Amino acid sequence: MSTVHVYDTTLRDGAQQEGLNLSVTDKLAIAAHLDDLGVGFIEGGWPGANPKDTEFFRRAHDELDLRTARLAAFGSTRRAGARAAEDPQVAALLDARTPVVTLVAKSHPRHVELALRTTLAENLAMIEDTVSHLVAASRTVFLDAEHFFDGYALDPAYALEVVRTAAGAGAEVVVLCDTNGGMLPPQVGQVVQQVARDTGARLGIHCHNDTGCAVANSVAAVQAGATHVQGTINGYGERTGNADLVTVISNLQLKLGHPLLPPERLARAAALSHQISEITNVVPYSRQPYVGASAFAHKAGLHASALRIDPDLYQHTDPALVGNQMRTLVSDMAGRASIELKGKELGYDLSDRPELLARMVRTVKDLELQGWTFDAADASFELLLRREVTGEPLRYFDVESWRVITDSGSDSSLSEATVKLVAAGERQVAVGEGNGPVNALDHALRQALAVAYPELDKLELIDFRVRILDASHGTDATTRVLVETSDGSSSWETVGVAGNIVHASWLALIDSFTYGLLSQGVEPR
Amino acid sequence: MSTVHVYDTTLRDGAQQEGLNLSVTDKLAIAAHLDDLGVGFIEGGWPGANPKDTEFFRRAHDELDLRTARLAAFGSTRRAGARAAEDPQVAALLDARTPVVTLVAKSHPRHVELALRTTLAENLAMIEDTVSHLVAASRTVFLDAEHFFDGYALDPAYALEVVRTAAGAGAEVVVLCDTNGGMLPPQVGQVVQQVARDTGARLGIHCHNDTGCAVANSVAAVQAGATHVQGTINGYGERTGNADLVTVISNLQLKLGHPLLPPERLARAAALSHQISEITNVVPYSRQPYVGASAFAHKAGLHASALRIDPDLYQHTDPALVGNQMRTLVSDMAGRASIELKGKELGYDLSDRPELLARMVRTVKDLELQGWTFDAADASFELLLRREVTGEPLRYFDVESWRVITDSGSDSSLSEATVKLVAAGERQVAVGEGNGPVNALDHALRQALAVAYPELDKLELIDFRVRILDASHGTDATTRVLVETSDGSSSWETVGVAGNIVHASWLALIDSFTYGLLSQGVEPR
Repeated sequence: MSTVHVYDTTLRDGAQQEGLNLSVTDKLAIAAHLDDLGVGFIEGGWPGANPKDTEFFRRAHDELDLRTARLAAFGSTRRAGARAAEDPQVAALLDARTPVVTLVAKSHPRHVELALRTTLAENLAMIEDTVSHLVAASRTVFLDAEHFFDGYALDPAYALEVVRTAAGAGAEVVVLCDTNGGMLPPQVGQVVQQVARDTGARLGIHCHNDTGCAVANSVAAVQAGATHVQGTINGYGERTGNADLVTVISNLQLKLGHPLLPPERLARAAALSHQISEITNVVPYSRQPYVGASAFAHKAGLHASALRIDPDLYQHTDPALVGNQMRTLVSDMAGRASIELKGKELGYDLSDRPELLARMVRTVKDLELQGWTFDAADASFELLLRREVTGEPLRYFDVESWRVITDSGSDSSLSEATVKLVAAGERQVAVGEGNGPVNALDHALRQALAVAYPELDKLELIDFRVRILDASHGTDATTRVLVETSDGSSSWETVGVAGNIVHASWLALIDSFTYGLLSQGVEPR
Repeated sequence: MSTVHVYDTTLRDGAQQEGLNLSVTDKLAIAAHLDDLGVGFIEGGWPGANPKDTEFFRRAHDELDLRTARLAAFGSTRRAGARAAEDPQVAALLDARTPVVTLVAKSHPRHVELALRTTLAENLAMIEDTVSHLVAASRTVFLDAEHFFDGYALDPAYALEVVRTAAGAGAEVVVLCDTNGGMLPPQVGQVVQQVARDTGARLGIHCHNDTGCAVANSVAAVQAGATHVQGTINGYGERTGNADLVTVISNLQLKLGHPLLPPERLARAAALSHQISEITNVVPYSRQPYVGASAFAHKAGLHASALRIDPDLYQHTDPALVGNQMRTLVSDMAGRASIELKGKELGYDLSDRPELLARMVRTVKDLELQGWTFDAADASFELLLRREVTGEPLRYFDVESWRVITDSGSDSSLSEATVKLVAAGERQVAVGEGNGPVNALDHALRQALAVAYPELDKLELIDFRVRILDASHGTDATTRVLVETSDGSSSWETVGVAGNIVHASWLALIDSFTYGLLSQGVEPR
């Protein structure tokens, strides 16, 4: 593996994105995904700055079992005129109990004077004191030199002194930050090379995308000698976002030969990008390099015949290397192949059933046009496939009707659901309460099925996600609901789509219960 | 003005984007906007390749009154083994009656053999013959050398021969195309420099964004000597899109001093980007450099205090230069400074009210810990701020109760809502139907308020977003709902958070209606 650090700051700098708001549970889930991808460092947040980040580090210490990544706490150098050993913010960094601490420090004279309101000399003392204090407490320290490139342009001698001071005090890496994002690649490359030469320090790079060059600037810095690169998943971040870490990694690894991640982990990049979008609920950007849904989609036309002969003539890299795939937007060839593959994965051999495959492709395309999605709902896909193979839907019970009432009765607005159905030959009428319509329906449905299918008792809904499609129609829009259910040992996802959010949820619930019974080998009673 | 050509291909290469489909009227409207921006050339399409493009050129000739731009028709070199003068596709280019024709030609040996199925020598003859024929017909000819960078890597001598042949036959510019988008800036710069030196031809650049470097590659080419730069508005295009033309122009003009557009025209860039999004119906990308809604939006509390003193310390350029503006966002990372700044933006001077500010910071942090978010809900924030300033909530009506029923009655599951409230001294009981619980509540609430507040009639819910927080609790989770409402001329966002999704939606609706009345200057009746 390469000696270049892959440092992710999705949880800290990425979370600065407008409209992005992560709960502690979200942050823990994202950290686990990042560890799976194989990044070297995960910056978790700023302990002490807000209660959420403090709680994140407490829970991460107990709950996160990282295999590859090391966790970093982010904070600033001590206050002017105090001692690091007595600064509560610095103490909070140690309380986070992470192996790594990343300190942000000023390296631009105007920022020292206007934002920190202290002297240039005191700023250097703050860096020296804080880095030494953390190193003495056995932390690996990285120092983010904020506004470095702008500062270097104004006063190179002072910017260099910041780098020397941090490195001299024991910072393992000094990260040059283009905080305002205004740089272009040649400037970045030149400054990194010069600073490396003048200071001998190990350098990192942290870029923002304000000129549309965050990726190119990061790559230029590595080519100029930086050996630590920061970024965020999907380029999340304030303003125009941070450098898109997956694109930076892919360029360095696939174009320039830096082995940053084991190939089998890089091949999870597209899936990881989408999984993290689901957690952040930021709509994926289809034109995103490498991992976007359109990244390898060809509108054929001019290219069609040559594409068939040699796809490599029309793609800059093999999409499989990043877990993506080529799509031709006019042909259903890819559709059939992937459905056959998916069927095989689920235990259905469809290789000698071209008609069934063609029918499935049509069904899936029709449903996807209506807003259904199966790439995140394997269980619903399997039920659909099973229905096509056997010729009839799997029916454990017959629903007569259902109804949910929500009212303003209390601040927490309980919902009440009634479900009427026939199971094992008996008509059941059951009522359930919940703190939302879906929760109430879940309880009523369980109640109605308890006698016929006691196996359902161990099922638990563990995730519930809503996406509004065709948002321009406002509350009139189509709604897609994804439900994840666990039986204690494994979990599965189902999907429902309807104009009515409650109806969509009901469809996903029915699939979830049906799949839960099927997977336990239960026969309809 | 600079001698660098600004060449827009939104209408041709941009239209290759997945999901983008432009009518002739759309194309004419976009062309008029491009002319307003001040681009030098507008590539309108491929006459003869499809009836739509042929009609575009016919109507453009009669209807478009271009002040700055010159129109270009796009097409390919003649067929192998024929004469340009007898090729119907070449004739269609002349029939388009444009001052400029842009020809696409192969410059990569494998593409000549596999896609064109002809010899390398015949490909050169096709270029020579077609360019000469068009030049003889008084057209300015640009030649797009497709797959140039890949071709140059494989066989530089042949790639150079293509450039020499085109230039020798009279092509004014030979455009080097990174058709597969796999290049990085140093390669692009190096090849452009080498080709310029070896051929003496005037060179252009055409980049795709597959490595996330389309902008950086375009800028690198100009720095290496290219004097013609192609791109599309909003970076539309196949796969990951083309170089975003506005970002390229802004970098060249504001960072590197190339005066490509008159400043007052560049200052229309943000508006133009949004107007064209409205025509294409592609959702604007908020993180787009220079013109995106978030491009100059600041969230961090750390920065807000210094932002007040000197905004230029925190922005890479003056947003007014591209017609954008700075915004401050309120979030749990925010401190007093950013709330003060936000208040100022909304017309509340809080500079001499430190206690109120401190209370607001506490309130916002507490609410955000519960899942509220205000950076995407300015209207709810303003109502909250107003309540703290005036000491009481703004009450246009008093809700007694509400209730929603959803049932399985039909596939589309209508919901039915009842709202009871007192407005203008009268008790109102109203019922509303909708295709979801929120839609039904919206209708019932409007109905109940119609007599007291006819001003609400013009309000329309235009977006509705749902986010499940702490999703690991499944259907038991907290739900956050964001609602966007329009009164026809402006729009505002409100937020609601509750365990029950319907209750959360109700809270966001109430804020939306309240803000809608407040912003019209309506007094409680």
